[in-house]
Amino acid sequence: MPQLGLLHGRAWAVLFGQLRRPPGAVCIRAVHSHSQVAEAALATQLKPHQEKSNFIIKTPKGTRDLSPQQMVVREKILDMVVSCFKRHGAKGLDTPAFELKETLTEKYGEDSGLIYDLKDQGGELLSLRYDLTVPFARYLAMNKVKKMKRYHVGKVWRRESPTIAQGRYREFCQCDFDIAGQFDPMIPDAECLKIMCEILSGLQLGDFLIKVNDRRILDGIFAVCGVPESKFHAICSSVDKLDKMSWKDVRHEMVAKKGLAAEIADRIGDYVQCHGGVSLVKQMFQDPRLSQNKQALEGLGDLKLLFEYLTLFGIAEKISFDLSLARGLDYYTGVIYEAVLLQTPAHAEEEPLNVGSVAAGGRYDGLVGMFDPKGHNVPCVGLSIGVERIFSIVEQRMKTFGEKIRTTETQVFVATPQKNFLQERLKLIAELWDAGIKAELMYKNNPKLLTQLHYCENMGIPLVVIIGEQELKEGVIKLRSVASREEVAITRENLVAEIQKRLSES
Amino acid sequence: MPQLGLLHGRAWAVLFGQLRRPPGAVCIRAVHSHSQVAEAALATQLKPHQEKSNFIIKTPKGTRDLSPQQMVVREKILDMVVSCFKRHGAKGLDTPAFELKETLTEKYGEDSGLIYDLKDQGGELLSLRYDLTVPFARYLAMNKVKKMKRYHVGKVWRRESPTIAQGRYREFCQCDFDIAGQFDPMIPDAECLKIMCEILSGLQLGDFLIKVNDRRILDGIFAVCGVPESKFHAICSSVDKLDKMSWKDVRHEMVAKKGLAAEIADRIGDYVQCHGGVSLVKQMFQDPRLSQNKQALEGLGDLKLLFEYLTLFGIAEKISFDLSLARGLDYYTGVIYEAVLLQTPAHAEEEPLNVGSVAAGGRYDGLVGMFDPKGHNVPCVGLSIGVERIFSIVEQRMKTFGEKIRTTETQVFVATPQKNFLQERLKLIAELWDAGIKAELMYKNNPKLLTQLHYCENMGIPLVVIIGEQELKEGVIKLRSVASREEVAITRENLVAEIQKRLSES
Repeated sequence: MPQLGLLHGRAWAVLFGQLRRPPGAVCIRAVHSHSQVAEAALATQLKPHQEKSNFIIKTPKGTRDLSPQQMVVREKILDMVVSCFKRHGAKGLDTPAFELKETLTEKYGEDSGLIYDLKDQGGELLSLRYDLTVPFARYLAMNKVKKMKRYHVGKVWRRESPTIAQGRYREFCQCDFDIAGQFDPMIPDAECLKIMCEILSGLQLGDFLIKVNDRRILDGIFAVCGVPESKFHAICSSVDKLDKMSWKDVRHEMVAKKGLAAEIADRIGDYVQCHGGVSLVKQMFQDPRLSQNKQALEGLGDLKLLFEYLTLFGIAEKISFDLSLARGLDYYTGVIYEAVLLQTPAHAEEEPLNVGSVAAGGRYDGLVGMFDPKGHNVPCVGLSIGVERIFSIVEQRMKTFGEKIRTTETQVFVATPQKNFLQERLKLIAELWDAGIKAELMYKNNPKLLTQLHYCENMGIPLVVIIGEQELKEGVIKLRSVASREEVAITRENLVAEIQKRLSES
Repeated sequence: MPQLGLLHGRAWAVLFGQLRRPPGAVCIRAVHSHSQVAEAALATQLKPHQEKSNFIIKTPKGTRDLSPQQMVVREKILDMVVSCFKRHGAKGLDTPAFELKETLTEKYGEDSGLIYDLKDQGGELLSLRYDLTVPFARYLAMNKVKKMKRYHVGKVWRRESPTIAQGRYREFCQCDFDIAGQFDPMIPDAECLKIMCEILSGLQLGDFLIKVNDRRILDGIFAVCGVPESKFHAICSSVDKLDKMSWKDVRHEMVAKKGLAAEIADRIGDYVQCHGGVSLVKQMFQDPRLSQNKQALEGLGDLKLLFEYLTLFGIAEKISFDLSLARGLDYYTGVIYEAVLLQTPAHAEEEPLNVGSVAAGGRYDGLVGMFDPKGHNVPCVGLSIGVERIFSIVEQRMKTFGEKIRTTETQVFVATPQKNFLQERLKLIAELWDAGIKAELMYKNNPKLLTQLHYCENMGIPLVVIIGEQELKEGVIKLRSVASREEVAITRENLVAEIQKRLSES
């Protein structure tokens, strides 16, 4: 699996807490030094909020700002995810944050109530997108695209009761990869599972497992167990809760809330508590009831083929055929899957603990047809990486390891030990910027040298160029390494080349 | 100025239409080949839209999808903008797409009506963000941050009457850079102008000019001309229209619509039709009326200092002191600026034509204080790059040059000339993916070799690996260069190394 090699090796290793600080090295830390600020209220014609009735300054419920530290983690993870999508030949695509309300209706089953609507301010009725899949299907139908492999990284919005402790937000980022088009069975589906494995291995999130099932097998189970067809969706939603609730509680919901006969629920229970590898697929083929159901047989046939391809990809041992996997969304029509992280148990005899889903997807062959004026379908299969969950895990790990990361990329700081050297500093820094060197200076006429050097240590800036009277007279600049504190004098003409040389070596 | 060097040289040059195709080279083109698609309606429990009352499939008014081609252009431009922001030491920050409605009120003057509100679905009243500046100020106040240099790339939403021909949308991307904190005057302001110059030069958009003014000078002008203070904002909005309307029409608006006395309007006209360099600053210092106004003198003093710094940065000749520049937003308190592209005129004696604003910004020292419970202020200055405009210009240029760009980055295609080689292809491509090589294959059991090779030519994929019976028997793989059509046999063990060698050479 491609892992660190794809990223800037060291930065990545620092991020993931795999490098220990060498003895004597400076601790890189982002500091918001709270300098003196003009506290006097400015003459403004605008009314401050505090004069108004109890305004509370906050982000909306279930949303948050991302700090520079969080942005660095996020950027690295997204880079890795996107580079995997590109490795598999995907094109980029972007769609608006909102869609016509009608575009989103009847796609999400019980979750439709979580869609954010925009206020009717005259004109169209609009809703914020709930996922990236429905907009993709709308795009395909609208542009009559019959074949496309695309990725999309973007925010989606859901009015969930936010339980932020679990890493669930009302605004969150999704990373989707989908393959649309009519192809030979299970080849794109297998690639989607391969991509999930590459990303989860590459991010080094620990052990994981991908549960696989098929909507047609579930429907077949419901049919042979005697569930009335009108209740398929409702019962499917109940089964979907088996990762959070016990079978006993799910059974209770089916019987007490959804009006299913107890013996039907029990028959379902016999199936949905099964999980295993390809041998379970074979076993289900032999099942006296299920083998009578055409839909279930189709699903089982595809799963058998899928396992064959997964073996060729070398990832079959990561996959579990799990009859309890249902996936909440209405639009799936075939194979479905969900990746969960496993926690190594404290005792060898215990089963690994499922610590939550980090990626999921499946086949949705009917969604594009819902948008097409003539109902023409484009079969699709795809996956979505739950990056918010992954961000939380990586952030938590960094806290545990106590590692700090740089929030800027500044390479050189332009300093002076003397007063009245602003003009020289400005001329010098413009030279560096124009040469493409990342450089900063203090926005003060007369900063103290110690303050300037401290800033470099705190921010992890590796080089300082120092200009003062002596240097100006001699036509040189002092170049200082922050880590070693060594200083050398360099002629002005050679400064840029020398800095570039040092940066390329480090 | 750093230009092409910062980006992948060749890709960038192709993007900007500077490379001509070498003779005989393949024209790179993205093709959506419309393959046979299962047209039979799928058994789905979902109701297709076409059965409903006249549903039209479209994106909301004023919004659009971005195609893979557009995404490639966008990615290159954003990479360049962000790398400039990072060169100047900025940290990343992200804020939610929506804010509490109250956070946005009374910040945008006449434009407040363009804010998108969310529907009241119970809970907080929310609005989509209108720019990235107000959320930044809210962030600073909320977290009591007194000093920060940050960039933010994100979408904003405005309910404007969309005139898409002009490149204006209701959803668009902004790239902001801001410096918050109490510093010595005009140093951060000068850096903002330097950044605008670096980006506009780097993107090679042709000649440009940055107009600079100061809100205090405008207010001083209004005061000495006799405008009642209650009308400052309204008259400022009228002045702001001078880039789109003649002085005659603006004067008419002031007098007829905003109730200003004609002689006051004429006095304003004498000022706001002036523009020039630092000499105009000196001239205004001598102005008998303006030199009596304390606010105007402060503004002029700062502009004088600003021009000094801009000269040290080597960009003074790009800057014009323009008394007609007003900027629509309420929150500016000091220096304001706006970059416009210039079109070289057909005749030497004509003035260069202003073809529209592509970047703008200014100082807003009072905005953070509006959010602080005690009204404590954090002085800020920043800029926003109008990337949508820039995207349109670059896309238009590419159309003119007739250059096509690759929408995928695939390096190797895994092909076979024989039937029943899917298993071997799958094993082979997994090896490539695991080695970090960008690879694709056809999702067919038995694709035709010619179809596979055509796909590579159309998509600009440089290498093909071919596996068939002969190769399997001999333990080799054929490696084919798409451009030269040369083929060599390589042992399976050496394949990855050989591909990596070829890719690093190209």
